[in-house]
Amino acid sequence: MENAKDFVIRGNVYHTPHLGAAEAKEYAYIVCIDGKCRGIFEELPKEYRELPKKDYKDALIVPGMVDLHLHAPQFAFRGTGMDSELLTWLKERTFPEEEKYADPDYARLAYGMFALRMRRSATTRAVIFATVHKEATIILMELMESTGLISYVGKVNMDRDAPPALQEKTALISTYDTIDWIDDIRNHHHFKRTYPIITPRFIPCCSNTLLDYLGEVRRLYDLPVQSHLSENPEEMKLVASLMPDAAFYGDGYDRYGLFGGEARTIMAHCIYSPEDEVERMRERGVWIAHCPNSNMNLASGIAPVRRYLDKKMRIGLGSDVAGGQTVSIFRAVTDAVQVSKLYWRYLDHEAEPLTFAEAFYLATRGGGSFFGNVGSFEEGYDFDAVVIDDTWSLHPQPMSVSERVERAFYLGLDRKGLVAKYAAGAKLSLEGDDDE
Amino acid sequence: MENAKDFVIRGNVYHTPHLGAAEAKEYAYIVCIDGKCRGIFEELPKEYRELPKKDYKDALIVPGMVDLHLHAPQFAFRGTGMDSELLTWLKERTFPEEEKYADPDYARLAYGMFALRMRRSATTRAVIFATVHKEATIILMELMESTGLISYVGKVNMDRDAPPALQEKTALISTYDTIDWIDDIRNHHHFKRTYPIITPRFIPCCSNTLLDYLGEVRRLYDLPVQSHLSENPEEMKLVASLMPDAAFYGDGYDRYGLFGGEARTIMAHCIYSPEDEVERMRERGVWIAHCPNSNMNLASGIAPVRRYLDKKMRIGLGSDVAGGQTVSIFRAVTDAVQVSKLYWRYLDHEAEPLTFAEAFYLATRGGGSFFGNVGSFEEGYDFDAVVIDDTWSLHPQPMSVSERVERAFYLGLDRKGLVAKYAAGAKLSLEGDDDE
Repeated sequence: MENAKDFVIRGNVYHTPHLGAAEAKEYAYIVCIDGKCRGIFEELPKEYRELPKKDYKDALIVPGMVDLHLHAPQFAFRGTGMDSELLTWLKERTFPEEEKYADPDYARLAYGMFALRMRRSATTRAVIFATVHKEATIILMELMESTGLISYVGKVNMDRDAPPALQEKTALISTYDTIDWIDDIRNHHHFKRTYPIITPRFIPCCSNTLLDYLGEVRRLYDLPVQSHLSENPEEMKLVASLMPDAAFYGDGYDRYGLFGGEARTIMAHCIYSPEDEVERMRERGVWIAHCPNSNMNLASGIAPVRRYLDKKMRIGLGSDVAGGQTVSIFRAVTDAVQVSKLYWRYLDHEAEPLTFAEAFYLATRGGGSFFGNVGSFEEGYDFDAVVIDDTWSLHPQPMSVSERVERAFYLGLDRKGLVAKYAAGAKLSLEGDDDE
Repeated sequence: MENAKDFVIRGNVYHTPHLGAAEAKEYAYIVCIDGKCRGIFEELPKEYRELPKKDYKDALIVPGMVDLHLHAPQFAFRGTGMDSELLTWLKERTFPEEEKYADPDYARLAYGMFALRMRRSATTRAVIFATVHKEATIILMELMESTGLISYVGKVNMDRDAPPALQEKTALISTYDTIDWIDDIRNHHHFKRTYPIITPRFIPCCSNTLLDYLGEVRRLYDLPVQSHLSENPEEMKLVASLMPDAAFYGDGYDRYGLFGGEARTIMAHCIYSPEDEVERMRERGVWIAHCPNSNMNLASGIAPVRRYLDKKMRIGLGSDVAGGQTVSIFRAVTDAVQVSKLYWRYLDHEAEPLTFAEAFYLATRGGGSFFGNVGSFEEGYDFDAVVIDDTWSLHPQPMSVSERVERAFYLGLDRKGLVAKYAAGAKLSLEGDDDE
């Protein structure tokens, strides 16, 4: 990773400063000063003319992709076992794999492959579930730090309804381990780009006591929160039976201070959120991680994204590996468009399908807002950029910059076409031969 | 292309001799005699021990993929213009591009790129729409012949409701050009692997007179038929208004002898087929080309595949480029599984989602039946095989052959992992640097 400095890059620029409003500029300059974007320029202003320049010529430059939700320990089995629903899949596929991360050597191997794939993706920001294991979670954080991506990583908490090898003995032990993990990070590590996040797995695996304690830890250390919400009808029934006094699933987090407001919170999925829950999320400013690929693979359903956008809620995209089969956020963008069309066709003809530009916004500025001013090339935004060379594949069809970007996403050119990646002004390495 | 001969290959074999029943064999032999499969063997029988052997070691060997429906002239704009529905998309995107194939030089360039991509895909059999242009269609057939794939290619017929540059002047002229095209193929070309197929675009673009003439041409030359059916609600309304005396959309083809029976027929999509139409398709043995990717992109819907399977109908998969964004049938398989899960969740809870093995069957033996005994390694089947090397990506998770195949499909390893391809016993070239 090269350190952040002042420089200029040039190429065909595309971003979405507003929802649905793409801005495309042919062969323009983007200026980075001290890790922040100074804007897009057709002519380079005088004061920047002496800065070092990198000319990406006819390649495409878009903001870095933001992945609001994925599970690092599930990466190892992605793309297998796709014939079951959430609760069965957790028991049969996920938990047996997550048990293995008790072994730091296994964690180093498997997380190493995950981190390499993240390095070689178009993603610059990610919010990640680890497992319950403290040591393995620190290993993952060290590996993520080395990629140069900016990420939140959560040691998972679960004190019920998990296999014995994975279940933390009591709420207190789970909480103690979490504090120990946070203190270890603060005292013994010097992460510059990798942050802890409070991570109760989901209500079926967390007792009320545990949620209560985690709310307190969160306040104490002023940390953000991530969890799952209203993903599957069976899961929701289970939650209702486990927490009969909660007004709705999300209320079960909210009563313990784990649902937005001062607690910056990401809730993954939100497919079946009742009106009250949606309203509470809106009030509390909860970020929704929309994970269309996972939601198909686990037969969960389709989240009502248009409804959330109409209410001006916070929403971004998640790959949700390994419910999702790939870490590619390019894929998440096109999946989001595709499922929104089926939603419109079959579930709500008032809910206009997402346009490509809208889904692109979710993947950049939408999810980016969790990290601050992230996800576009507006002045003052963190300089996160991805350069995609699609020039070998342009003939025979002449195409606008916008069409080329759309095509790069639909064809998945974030693999073969990825030539450079910047996060917060630092140019990241793409080296290595990853798993796909 | 190496000519078909007698040989043996060895590797980890996976195929689906019956719907839903996958057979996986670790490091087994497959014997090819005179282009036909002699079966899978754990120990090589004596009589085959002197044959030349190719050992693919730990790689995966599966039957070649069959693409029952795609549009070669739309390849050039795949992955763009995805924000509209069928009829708009045809007018704004498809027809303007198809006009260009009046120019043989453009056809040579654009079809050349298409054929290269097909060569470097896991597809061994394809059924392809060209355009109305006779010369360009012959160019496409020459290019497809050179790939070694076995394909049907159709000169499209359309005598109404198309832009002037694309619309054939009269039904008679359209028919005459079709006969001229077929005679040209018969008299001046020596295609061994590329066959003509009668291709009325769809009823909105074909007058009754034209359909009548094409039925006669079909009988005269004993050719198969391909077209589109019941893809989109607006399209179906249009068909009902254009052909008010037809009992249903498919009846509009059937009354002219273009709907199964003696006419081997593929109908693409069949999303909204009413019960009568389904019953007629079943009686007539019409093949259904299920195109899940395209059906999402054009917001068409989800075909009731489980219903067709329960009725033991003929059904395979189509990429439907460029309603579909990719020619990858690996992608079509996983898309078919994914949309079947949404269908089950939202449209019919009795319609069990497709398993991976069932979707694999559709992509191989299901569609393969259009070509004869094609799509599995049973004795007497044409030797079509694809070799996928996923061995660089196997750690850290030990996996069965079945899991590896599933994973190769979900991760799209038909690009980086494709190491060999055989069609009807001939080993095909994978050379060239294609567009993705």
